Formats: sequence, C-alpha cells, structure tokens
Amino acid sequence: MNLLKAALKKTFNSAFPHMRELGWQVLELESDAVLAKVRYGPDLVGDPRTGVLHGGVVTSLLDSAGGLAVLARLGRPLPLATLDLRIDYMRPSKPGLDVFGRVECFQLTRNVAFTRGVAYDADPADPVAAMTATYMLNTQRLRRRQGSGADGGNGDGTASD
Amino acid sequence: MNLLKAALKKTFNSAFPHMRELGWQVLELESDAVLAKVRYGPDLVGDPRTGVLHGGVVTSLLDSAGGLAVLARLGRPLPLATLDLRIDYMRPSKPGLDVFGRVECFQLTRNVAFTRGVAYDADPADPVAAMTATYMLNTQRLRRRQGSGADGGNGDGTASD
Amino acid sequence: MNLLKAALKKTFNSAFPHMRELGWQVLELESDAVLAKVRYGPDLVGDPRTGVLHGGVVTSLLDSAGGLAVLARLGRPLPLATLDLRIDYMRPSKPGLDVFGRVECFQLTRNVAFTRGVAYDADPADPVAAMTATYMLNTQRLRRRQGSGADGGNGDGTASD
Amino acid sequence: MNLLKAALKKTFNSAFPHMRELGWQVLELESDAVLAKVRYGPDLVGDPRTGVLHGGVVTSLLDSAGGLAVLARLGRPLPLATLDLRIDYMRPSKPGLDVFGRVECFQLTRNVAFTRGVAYDADPADPVAAMTATYMLNTQRLRRRQGSGADGGNGDGTASD
Repeated sequence: MNLLKAALKKTFNSAFPHMRELGWQVLELESDAVLAKVRYGPDLVGDPRTGVLHGGVVTSLLDSAGGLAVLARLGRPLPLATLDLRIDYMRPSKPGLDVFGRVECFQLTRNVAFTRGVAYDADPADPVAAMTATYMLNTQRLRRRQGSGADGGNGDGTASD
Repeated sequence: MNLLKAALKKTFNSAFPHMRELGWQVLELESDAVLAKVRYGPDLVGDPRTGVLHGGVVTSLLDSAGGLAVLARLGRPLPLATLDLRIDYMRPSKPGLDVFGRVECFQLTRNVAFTRGVAYDADPADPVAAMTATYMLNTQRLRRRQGSGADGGNGDGTASD
Repeated sequence: MNLLKAALKKTFNSAFPHMRELGWQVLELESDAVLAKVRYGPDLVGDPRTGVLHGGVVTSLLDSAGGLAVLARLGRPLPLATLDLRIDYMRPSKPGLDVFGRVECFQLTRNVAFTRGVAYDADPADPVAAMTATYMLNTQRLRRRQGSGADGGNGDGTASD
Repeated sequence: MNLLKAALKKTFNSAFPHMRELGWQVLELESDAVLAKVRYGPDLVGDPRTGVLHGGVVTSLLDSAGGLAVLARLGRPLPLATLDLRIDYMRPSKPGLDVFGRVECFQLTRNVAFTRGVAYDADPADPVAAMTATYMLNTQRLRRRQGSGADGGNGDGTASD
C-alpha cells in the first residue's frame, strides 16, 4: 500500500507531463479502482464552435486511470503498457464541466490485466463514454529478456521497478 | 473538393485548440484517406523516465485523422461524432520522433462511417498502433430533430454546416 | 412488458435456428439486463484436444443476450442490429460446463444502444470473457426510408414490428 | 511450411467440431493471410423472417481465420488463444450466400499477434463486417509454468505442440 501511495503521490507530483497539461488528478484510489479527473479548459476543446472537450482528453483520462487501477489491484509497482483500448462515446461532455473517469481492474491474469470504466461530467449514471482496456504486465522484464523492445504496448502507466 | 480544402485549411488554420497543442498537421488528403502527424515534445511525454509520447496523443491523432478521412470520403462537410474507437498498441513510439497517422474511411452507410488506420514513427510497416473507429453522421440534424442532444458521439471532427 | 414476454417466449420457442443449435436459453429477463446460457456439447467444441467450447459460441451467446437486453430496456420490440461487438477473453471455459452470459443495456440514445456483459461457467466473479457491444435501433425504418438497405448492422436480434 | 500444411490439412479434416458444423473451409493460405468461408444454411440463420446468417457465424469465421493467419505468419504450430476480438458490422449478409473471410496477421511481437480482416458475401469491396483481433502466443507454455491455467485466452486456434 505504501508503494501504491508512492505511485499516487508521483501522479500528484505531476510526474507525467502530458497528463499534467490536462489537469489530471487522482481523487480516489481503491483496492482495484480509481476515480480521476481532467479539467475543462479552452485549450483542451476540440472544436471552439461547440466548446466541447476534445475526445482525446477523455481517452487520455480513461487510459491513465485504467493503468493506475491495474497498479492498485496488483498492489505493487510493475511496468505495464496499454495493449488495447476501446472507447464508446455516448454523448459530448458539457462545455465548462470537468470530466471524471472511474475505472476498475476487474480481472488479472499472469500477463494481462482487464479494466472497464466510464467517463462522466455531472452524473455517473449519465456517462459521456464507456471504456474497456487491457494492459500487458511485466513489459520491461520481457523487453530486457528479448533485447529488442518489440513487445507490444505503448509504455503508458509504467511504474518504477 | 473546395469544401474539403476549406476543411483542410481550417485544420491548418489551427481551429482546434487541443489538436493545435499537439502540433497536429494534415500532410496528405486523398479521396478517402488522410495522412497527418503530431509532434514530439517533452510536454507531450507520458513518463519522463522513458521519454515516450503519451498514448493519448497517438489516440487523438488517429481519432482526428479518422474524422477527416470520413469528411474526405463524404466530399462535403457534415456534423459527425466518434461513436467508438479502438486502438491496439504494438510498441512504444521512439523518443524524439514525430508520430504519423494514416487513416482511411473504407465504408460508408447512411448513418455510420467506418475507418481504420495505423500510427507509426519511422516506418509505416512497423506501426506503433492500429486503429478502427466508427463515426456517426448527421448528429446535429438528429439532435435538432429530437431536441435533447442525447444522440451519441463526442462532437469531435464536426465540420460546419 | 407483454411484448417483452412475447419476445422472450419467441426465444424459448426456438425461433432462432442458430441459437437453438447452441442450446440458447434465457434464464432471467430484467428491466435492462438478461441472463442467458448456451449448452456444453462435443459438437460445439473448438479443439477436441482441449475440449474447450469454441469462442464463437461464447460470442453468439453474448451478442444475442445483448440484443435482448436492449429490447428489455426499450420495453417494446424494435428492429435492431449489432453495430459493433468487442469480446475480451480472459480464460478458456471449463470443458463440460454450460456457459452463462449476463448482459445489461446501460445507455440508450435515439439511434444507438450500449451494452456490456460477461460470460462465465461456474462463478460470475471469475469470468471467461467480457463484452461490450453497441446496437443500432430502427434499422428497418431507416432502410425503408432509404430503399437501399445499406444501413449498417447485421440484422441479428431484430424483433417483429 | 509442412507444419502449416499439416495445420491446414487438419482443418480440412474437420478437426474442429463447431467449425465443421459451420461448413468452415480454408480456400487460400498465404504467408501471413487466410481466405476462408462458412456456408449458408437455414440452420445457421439468425432470424428466419429475414433469412440472414447469424452474426455469430460470421464472428466464428473471422476468429478462426485470424488464428490461422497468425499460424501462417509464425510459420510453425504454436498454442495460441484469442485475447480480444472486435467486429464492426456494416450490413446483413445476403440470404442464400456463403460468407467469406479474409484475415491478415499484420504484426507480431513476442507475446501478441495482431490481425485484421473483413467478411463479405459477393464482393470483397462491399464487406459485411470488419474485424480486428489480437492473439496471445505460447499460452500453453505460460500455463505450464504457472500451473493454474489462468493465463487469458479462449483456447481457439491452438495448434499442436
């Protein structure tokens, strides 16, 4: 749990440049789930005519929250990488509102962690988007063993060894 | 084609705040496909220990390129919204390199457009990620008709009416 | 609710040839969710060396349960078609065991319904697979209006008008 | 290549019960791609009112063709399991027509293979569905090492060791 807190702290300490620009904050860290948010801001808008936050901001929120949910469930830091990510958009988020993401890691095998979550602005029951993602574990160890680094994943959410 | 060029120009004119921050540029616009790029930059990095671009940047690139590929195939501006997006990550992008996205719209029905593409840094044959996404067309008209705006999609890639 | 019961009955009455071969049964029908099962059988096995049910059987179970969950939430029969379907496999199902699918329709917009669910053999907390799928509503009406029938979807789960 | 031919032969020899029921045939086997088909038949129909093949039949076709495409690219038999599968349905297949699936394995890392393909009835340029799927390699070895067999995947497409 200390390691988790360290991971959380690191997040709060703004270790991740792109997420810092998005105003990423972890609000709650449970044993297998994470509640986080990104800020609303004119610089994060997709199209100024609608004022709606860019979909990529919501995707980044969910992807990062998913990685942290996996670490929470693992209970220890471990290199991991997003293997695949699916987002279903249900509606545009409301201009002016921050967007929250709640993601849980609902299953863990030796090599792969499975997550699902939603993003919402005002009401969790009226989601903006739903997400499912899988993360590959131990990517760094695998890469070291094989040398080439050709082992899948985009390196997000990697925690220190 | 004039409308398409206008859409392209608008893109170049940095109409989209979040994409502008990512250094988004459209390099080629074909009849049903788009080649675009995002820049590498320390502010867009996921984890400074690896220097790898955040996965969300790659996702935003592919999502926006997909929306533009749909407009290219439609041959006219039309409100559209990402309905769902799936990204498979194959490897981390290389630190220091811009990332390119090539997306084609391979099928169009009355309400839905289907796209697929890849992101790569140096070699298109060695992709960083593969993407498939669907976009809902005519979202604005549907919303007007129903009043409530509850009609799916995140509003990205919407072109003027 | 009578219409729903009729739909359910129709299902029980084996109206759907392929699902009948899979031993498809609806066990519970809630206001927005469905519990259904397919049978284990040597003719439904993927590879006889492992005796594991073919993944396509699990996929058919979840796809059909999702369509029925949408009808349950709609509260009336309506033509619908699977727009996209994603299955994450967590482990092989156990040889000899029937497989259960529980799917809920968690969001509904004018044109699209969103579902998610799991398949399991013995314990719902130890799933075989997780699923998310979207269904397009009113496909028949749209097709009639446009004439061409080119309007997305695979026609599964269509209920009578 | 002999091993591949053996795998192909095994397929033709109807080693896979469920696929045999679907009339599964491999028509072409290239170095990294597969063309296969399933038959049209009243017993495989989703809804008799439309006569359209059940979506699950198309999904099984694409899932199995993807697994075989991975084996083709690997150039040797290897236990593998579908990790995740996404199908986008574009239109119903035409009653009376067999459905073809063409899937390629476009990327291979140490643990994961990435595939994409389409299903069509008459014209490859007018697809019924598009598919992307990832397969986990070496599942059997991993399972042996860990004992528990909890290592993801549904066991389809597993080739002999």
